[in-house]
Amino acid sequence: MGISLGYNQYGKAECRMVHVDRSTPVHAITDVTVTSQLIGDFADTHLTGDNSKVIATDTQKNTVYALARQFGVGSPEEFALRTARYFVDGFEQVTGARQEVLLHSWERIVTSTGGPHDHAFAKGSAETRTTVVTKDGADEVVLSGLTDLTVLKSTGSEFHGFPAVPFTSLVETDDRILATAVTARWRYIGTEVDWDKSFSSIRQILLDRFAETHSLSLQQTLYTMGEAALEAHPELAEIRFSMPNKHHFLVDLSKWDLDNPNEVWHVADRPYGLIEASIIRDDAPAAGSAWDGVKGFI
Amino acid sequence: MGISLGYNQYGKAECRMVHVDRSTPVHAITDVTVTSQLIGDFADTHLTGDNSKVIATDTQKNTVYALARQFGVGSPEEFALRTARYFVDGFEQVTGARQEVLLHSWERIVTSTGGPHDHAFAKGSAETRTTVVTKDGADEVVLSGLTDLTVLKSTGSEFHGFPAVPFTSLVETDDRILATAVTARWRYIGTEVDWDKSFSSIRQILLDRFAETHSLSLQQTLYTMGEAALEAHPELAEIRFSMPNKHHFLVDLSKWDLDNPNEVWHVADRPYGLIEASIIRDDAPAAGSAWDGVKGFI
Amino acid sequence: MGISLGYNQYGKAECRMVHVDRSTPVHAITDVTVTSQLIGDFADTHLTGDNSKVIATDTQKNTVYALARQFGVGSPEEFALRTARYFVDGFEQVTGARQEVLLHSWERIVTSTGGPHDHAFAKGSAETRTTVVTKDGADEVVLSGLTDLTVLKSTGSEFHGFPAVPFTSLVETDDRILATAVTARWRYIGTEVDWDKSFSSIRQILLDRFAETHSLSLQQTLYTMGEAALEAHPELAEIRFSMPNKHHFLVDLSKWDLDNPNEVWHVADRPYGLIEASIIRDDAPAAGSAWDGVKGFI
Amino acid sequence: MGISLGYNQYGKAECRMVHVDRSTPVHAITDVTVTSQLIGDFADTHLTGDNSKVIATDTQKNTVYALARQFGVGSPEEFALRTARYFVDGFEQVTGARQEVLLHSWERIVTSTGGPHDHAFAKGSAETRTTVVTKDGADEVVLSGLTDLTVLKSTGSEFHGFPAVPFTSLVETDDRILATAVTARWRYIGTEVDWDKSFSSIRQILLDRFAETHSLSLQQTLYTMGEAALEAHPELAEIRFSMPNKHHFLVDLSKWDLDNPNEVWHVADRPYGLIEASIIRDDAPAAGSAWDGVKGFI
Repeated sequence: MGISLGYNQYGKAECRMVHVDRSTPVHAITDVTVTSQLIGDFADTHLTGDNSKVIATDTQKNTVYALARQFGVGSPEEFALRTARYFVDGFEQVTGARQEVLLHSWERIVTSTGGPHDHAFAKGSAETRTTVVTKDGADEVVLSGLTDLTVLKSTGSEFHGFPAVPFTSLVETDDRILATAVTARWRYIGTEVDWDKSFSSIRQILLDRFAETHSLSLQQTLYTMGEAALEAHPELAEIRFSMPNKHHFLVDLSKWDLDNPNEVWHVADRPYGLIEASIIRDDAPAAGSAWDGVKGFI
Repeated sequence: MGISLGYNQYGKAECRMVHVDRSTPVHAITDVTVTSQLIGDFADTHLTGDNSKVIATDTQKNTVYALARQFGVGSPEEFALRTARYFVDGFEQVTGARQEVLLHSWERIVTSTGGPHDHAFAKGSAETRTTVVTKDGADEVVLSGLTDLTVLKSTGSEFHGFPAVPFTSLVETDDRILATAVTARWRYIGTEVDWDKSFSSIRQILLDRFAETHSLSLQQTLYTMGEAALEAHPELAEIRFSMPNKHHFLVDLSKWDLDNPNEVWHVADRPYGLIEASIIRDDAPAAGSAWDGVKGFI
Repeated sequence: MGISLGYNQYGKAECRMVHVDRSTPVHAITDVTVTSQLIGDFADTHLTGDNSKVIATDTQKNTVYALARQFGVGSPEEFALRTARYFVDGFEQVTGARQEVLLHSWERIVTSTGGPHDHAFAKGSAETRTTVVTKDGADEVVLSGLTDLTVLKSTGSEFHGFPAVPFTSLVETDDRILATAVTARWRYIGTEVDWDKSFSSIRQILLDRFAETHSLSLQQTLYTMGEAALEAHPELAEIRFSMPNKHHFLVDLSKWDLDNPNEVWHVADRPYGLIEASIIRDDAPAAGSAWDGVKGFI
Repeated sequence: MGISLGYNQYGKAECRMVHVDRSTPVHAITDVTVTSQLIGDFADTHLTGDNSKVIATDTQKNTVYALARQFGVGSPEEFALRTARYFVDGFEQVTGARQEVLLHSWERIVTSTGGPHDHAFAKGSAETRTTVVTKDGADEVVLSGLTDLTVLKSTGSEFHGFPAVPFTSLVETDDRILATAVTARWRYIGTEVDWDKSFSSIRQILLDRFAETHSLSLQQTLYTMGEAALEAHPELAEIRFSMPNKHHFLVDLSKWDLDNPNEVWHVADRPYGLIEASIIRDDAPAAGSAWDGVKGFI
């Protein structure tokens, strides 16, 4: 009848795992959320309910735990590559995999008298380090990044010069609060990378450029952040951003003879501006299907 | 330096709007969340902060309201097409648009003595009707669907025959609870469609197939739902699903000499299975970039 | 040194349970979230870490499941009373209990050809039926209610006559949208009640009064809802409400020569008005500590 | 008919406000969520819809902004006292007020070359400093505290010695992960307090005690945290805690001949243990209605 199964993937989403490195009395913890998705010869279960090739999602979850026990977690990229290779290399019916690892931040508690504690931790900010590894046969693409890096500038941001088209009522400003929650993903060229070092450096560049750029638009801030990351990191093919403009509106108190020289702001929830763009190296290799499985534009 | 701006889009996300049709004393309400994104000649604002071509996101929001006032909302698809055409046809620098409309459900309150009330409503379920219209020049692709249609079968679901690969511990079952929160999106061929009628019919087919299929795997249930929709609706090119397997685990009470013949279940939060697939008509026209802007696989 | 342990309670929160009644081929499901809290002679575990009197929270969870297997769930009130009595009557160190049961709504799927399905269900609205039973020795108080009953009137609501005190800028209106998400809790006199019948009737009264009252303030609407419930239900001692005023703001389109006769509204998230009140029968028995453990005012 | 209006309060909830101190080029930001509730002679609006005594919730919101402009925000306690006194002292019909201020954390961005930036900030953790001021005529009670201080110990926590009552299956352990998200509120004696200093010191004591206590139960940890706070801070009458036991379950890999010496843990969502208690100074003054308006037990 001319209808058939197209692209499909399946797996176990959001395996919540904490790994404790107890090799010394000074423990280290790695808190991750792992989503494992497999791609391959799975038409039968769709068409007839024959599960003889299906690696149960429960088994995928167990595998995540077992590999963490056998090899540790390491960086998110290492762990995602390990699980992707385990499934694709180990099972004939698995031709590809998409493995996502989110790394949640914790900080060591600093006690009054003892300094940094050796096994007590406090949760850090909502900022999360992310990676999605897409393996298609022998091809491996690593997208790494971060979400929920919420940043704000209390000055050094303008917005004007936009055209007065119909239904425009926004007033131009040369001093506003600029705030956003950065989601960024960058695509690596190859997999021989010092993942932790690369991540830390890119993150610092994004913060530097956000803080130090005198902004004429959130687009401009976004672009300069991405350009600087690509310039400093030849291992990157591309970087994408999704940056909501978290509007802060100056409260008008003039009705009551009060001025408000950019001091008191209302923080709005919705709607919000949303700026999304890719900055790309001209000779970047093709991305394949790496971006297909991530949320929205990035 | 070999670095340049790639794909980009921007707009106003999550404009919350209620439209009241007051043309008769029996009011009708339409509660939507609209996200407007524009694509086009917006390199300047990224590269230099020159905003002379930028249609402010605030203006996009105002336009959503104004078009709702001038023409009503109608179906989500009509409204998304209207706003997409307004921006692409009306502004030289706008070469494309992506417009998302979410329709939230309300039901008329039925009073004890008066029957359905003419202007009082109660919120319905979390199920949301969705559409994303992507307009690239003259090309228009409509993806419609629904999210958060949470359904459950208390029997009529089996899962067995999966291989006992390493790290498998799942026990086979011939009677389990099957529960999922359906996210579906279908791609229309063309834009001459009775949107409301098509939506209602497809939704009913999905419910029918979920309820009436004796399930051997969630994949099988998914496929039969999609196949039936495509068979009955020639206006569809493709349908995609993302269906979490919301696990219900039978509670083991045997330690206390209590049996549990599929009566008492623990409802788990995370992790959860996740099944995603496309069912496609063989001669379907190309999708262009229509799927690029939606969340995750679908 | 003059410091001591005050009131304390402990237990297992948010046990997610689905019970399936399979006594006939037409299944019925009961989807609840149960929180069990115990009060009693638990100073030792606080002061010295001696757990010899502690009924483990894991055991409380198991008990919830086991009692559901042995006796079914029934109404939320029946189940909460059963678990409260089990713990208080069964353990010397347990002098009191607070048991909360939330009942989530599901509706039978109606298929095209088969009518209401015998074992397939779709999730209903976010509205949740609630109960909190507080047992203090032999004293039992039942607070029942509902949350997230979101309702809206598109007309029939005014708000004016408020004083123009400093910092007032709100404009008076004789026609606005009135919307709220009702949280209500009512306190029963005694425990010999037909719980399901009482709940259904009270819920209908709340809907009737919301729909049919021409509102001069959300406070007035709230009071009439509560008064009607108490008038019709002598088994109630008191009813409390927490009702956010979910603001809908009329969009001003006059800048562009468009009128807006109460048709197009912006739906705001925060801040929101919040109206909370108790309506009480003059000769109501004392509530004891029944209200102490519920969230906020109610 | 023997039915009357009981306790009631109303106001504006969740006013989101950022205040920028621009008195020097090194800006400081204060990000708060303010909820204003008034108590008083408001029976008329409930009973007849006469709003002549109602200070509109919109006006309460404006007042929050205006007072922030006139006097700054300062500590949450100062601001809540200021708004409470403004309303109770300024309006005859207002006999009491409950004012909640949540303080959200931001940290100065540290750039590579410039050190701490003078006007760029990054959002801190979800931990929130809280205060609720209840003013009843001339009586003022300040409850301060914190929420979402999520902490974890990777060792140094045991749980055993609980009785094997029916339905017990939990295994005793002498080494587990202990994790919780601390919500604490402490009640001050009087209002002449160095609020910021008191807060910082109490917070550090809670962290110290959590980290350094070898835990035999979460109850014991809770009590020692509270006792230490009261011992060190004579300005406190009482401290209350609500501490979920965020369960981490050791993954059993023995089926596959893998040991797991407390290294790989599954992090559970629900259900969770919940421990709530008050530690109180024996000669503490009465709390009045101060606790009535806070969420749940605390």
